[in-house]
Amino acid sequence: MALDKFFNAKSIAVIGVSRDPNKVGHVIFRNFVDGEYKGKIYVVNPNAESILNHKAYPSVLDIDDDIELAIVAVPAEIVPKVLEECGKKKIRHVIIDTAGFKEIGNYQLESKLENVIKKYKLKVIGPNALGVYDAYSKIDSLFLPRFRMSRPKEGVISFVCQSGAVGSSIVDLATAEGYGFAKFISYGNAVDVDESDLIEYLGDDEKTRVICVYIEGVRNGRKFLDVCRKVSKKKPIIAIKGGVTEAGAKATLSHTGSLAGSAEIYFGAFKQAGILRAENLEDLFNYAKILEKCIAPKGGKMQIITNGGGYGILATDATAKNGIKLAEFSKEIKSELRKQLPQLINIVNPLDLVGDATSGRYRLSINACMRDKNIDILLVIVLVQTPLIATDIVDVITEANDLKKKPIIVVSAGGEFTEIMRRNLESNGIPTYTYPEDAVRAVQQLAKYYKNK
Amino acid sequence: MALDKFFNAKSIAVIGVSRDPNKVGHVIFRNFVDGEYKGKIYVVNPNAESILNHKAYPSVLDIDDDIELAIVAVPAEIVPKVLEECGKKKIRHVIIDTAGFKEIGNYQLESKLENVIKKYKLKVIGPNALGVYDAYSKIDSLFLPRFRMSRPKEGVISFVCQSGAVGSSIVDLATAEGYGFAKFISYGNAVDVDESDLIEYLGDDEKTRVICVYIEGVRNGRKFLDVCRKVSKKKPIIAIKGGVTEAGAKATLSHTGSLAGSAEIYFGAFKQAGILRAENLEDLFNYAKILEKCIAPKGGKMQIITNGGGYGILATDATAKNGIKLAEFSKEIKSELRKQLPQLINIVNPLDLVGDATSGRYRLSINACMRDKNIDILLVIVLVQTPLIATDIVDVITEANDLKKKPIIVVSAGGEFTEIMRRNLESNGIPTYTYPEDAVRAVQQLAKYYKNK
Repeated sequence: MALDKFFNAKSIAVIGVSRDPNKVGHVIFRNFVDGEYKGKIYVVNPNAESILNHKAYPSVLDIDDDIELAIVAVPAEIVPKVLEECGKKKIRHVIIDTAGFKEIGNYQLESKLENVIKKYKLKVIGPNALGVYDAYSKIDSLFLPRFRMSRPKEGVISFVCQSGAVGSSIVDLATAEGYGFAKFISYGNAVDVDESDLIEYLGDDEKTRVICVYIEGVRNGRKFLDVCRKVSKKKPIIAIKGGVTEAGAKATLSHTGSLAGSAEIYFGAFKQAGILRAENLEDLFNYAKILEKCIAPKGGKMQIITNGGGYGILATDATAKNGIKLAEFSKEIKSELRKQLPQLINIVNPLDLVGDATSGRYRLSINACMRDKNIDILLVIVLVQTPLIATDIVDVITEANDLKKKPIIVVSAGGEFTEIMRRNLESNGIPTYTYPEDAVRAVQQLAKYYKNK
Repeated sequence: MALDKFFNAKSIAVIGVSRDPNKVGHVIFRNFVDGEYKGKIYVVNPNAESILNHKAYPSVLDIDDDIELAIVAVPAEIVPKVLEECGKKKIRHVIIDTAGFKEIGNYQLESKLENVIKKYKLKVIGPNALGVYDAYSKIDSLFLPRFRMSRPKEGVISFVCQSGAVGSSIVDLATAEGYGFAKFISYGNAVDVDESDLIEYLGDDEKTRVICVYIEGVRNGRKFLDVCRKVSKKKPIIAIKGGVTEAGAKATLSHTGSLAGSAEIYFGAFKQAGILRAENLEDLFNYAKILEKCIAPKGGKMQIITNGGGYGILATDATAKNGIKLAEFSKEIKSELRKQLPQLINIVNPLDLVGDATSGRYRLSINACMRDKNIDILLVIVLVQTPLIATDIVDVITEANDLKKKPIIVVSAGGEFTEIMRRNLESNGIPTYTYPEDAVRAVQQLAKYYKNK
């Protein structure tokens, strides 16, 4: 694959590593030194002997080794010269972090880059980009200190983001919430490699199971549609579009210089291409989580189990608002549960196991749902504040989920104790949500993706 | 006030303290023993000598002291007898945690309670209730172990909740997120004290600045309207209604036995009574936070400042979706900022200070907004992943906020480092949000409350 080296290069040169620890190039190189990248790294700085105990070379041309990837952080006006040197050195893959091109009206400088790219047949991400973070190879061109932005653990979500700030802060947040990532790419001005190239690449990437995208505009609508139509048949693409209102679209112009275009056109295109649309950043990863973890449901009928009546009601309200069908117990399962559960429990949907529910009561009910042919999806609400829910509730739910018969989604809201349970469920492959509304909206996307597919 | 003793009693008897550490009465008493309540506590259990090193009395009538509040956790069928003894002992305030009354169709038993209440002129919260948590007096009738549900710190939000499970899990969650509370009341079946009584009481409570409410149905619509209309003139009431869809309403019947009634009727009544409506649990506290912390805006025009273009765009989209007006800089302030800020920054709304923004650049811009008469509300988006944002950004925002000229709201998304900044801002009285959409929806409620008022 033409883009492979961005994520798997065995030798990397960082060009423009300042001594100043606040400067972009220094932060990038510091992250390689502190990080876990296993390949070879080289510093380019014509005005230094060595930086962070690594010998500094005046130019890539002075390095006596093959370089597979260059990361550029020199001032904008000398980027064309540096890129030319990369071409001569036969470095085919270059990430340009430097800003100061098209996004501030500097079209001429950006077109100089285009010429060099053509001349040497380079693959370039950027300029005005954070570039790449690969959670497996640990290639990391993000100029954000690690203590400010934590790097995610290995996972199966990849995130393609036009905006560096949105991308880095959301990856930081998602990392804190326990999400794992495969690849994160902030592609900036897209002088060469654009969103469609990246989505196409991720479509074939074995590490990536779900693709998340933040875009303000696309460079080539036809190409974007073709690529997404093809990729979304293989794995889910979830996208959020910045600038969907008139005022928002106006603001995109001075950000990435994108012509945002009419929201309706975008939303129509998303639908045609099988892209799931997130309304906001929170939903983007709420959707990614369910699509990452859950198996395909056989149909759209959902059963709710709860030990908090109010949560059952809120979840039920959310199903009606989001077009999710409520399952009805089959006759056999209903009479089976009637015999096994206390009389005061109604065998309906939502199934309210009430405040003194034990893990055993959950086990009975969940297992029955697994066997009921009328039920396609199971939403388990479990509030662990009450004394009778033992910690083996995690095992109860995990065992049922491990049967891989139906998607199970968990809602659990609370503080530290709840968090421990939730983290355990998540690492056992069960998506969990704090709010019933978020869970139900995620279920809607799960059902939609597999129905379209 | 007739309800004062529920929150300020100087002596409390817990009736029905089992030896079994999982039983309701035991958990309640254990929480008093482990907690910080300063008054006197008594155990009632006719079958024990002592529990948790406290002498056990056969009945409240055997206690040789005045008791101001009783908390009842005996089995349902003996609650009337125990309540009768409370009456004889001249305990005027009783919380009944015990379930098994109207909510499971046991109307007869519940009407027995009504008779005793009338006979002795008692004030009763419950049955089928968690009861009360007061963050100041530390009175705590919640039968939820502290390691499972953390108790909130002192604050100014009070939460009236029909559902115990919703109430406790959300208080637990909100506590983990740093919210402070004044009073939390889960009132269950409301045989005597109902939602309207509690809202009226909180309207006069000096500790309470914002009232949050979760209801499935109201007992007396007229009374509810009258009380809320009066109270919402003094302080904001934010309510979420469970059972707003047909399916959800059906589910409320088997939960609290409430007739949910048409959502439209409720929403109309909320509007009439000046109640702010939350669509979901997440919004409930997002709204509470802004109303707790922010001063009244002079008008509805908002300026956005950001160091992440994408966030500025998403916030702008959200203003258009939620009917918030974007401010336009006055001529003087615009030309002042033009002189002070780098040329590549457009002096518009959103004001994008771009990726290399420093705290100094924020200071300039925020101070200018404080002086601009065209701006009523300020939304500051600050992403602290970038190296040049120094930690004094907290001081910059706090100093401007301390002028008490305009409401300032902050959006900051990220992991641990961001959380440190956010917690600092919050404890300095500035509401912070992770997502721009949430912040803008909260601003909408702030503007709405003060406009109606």
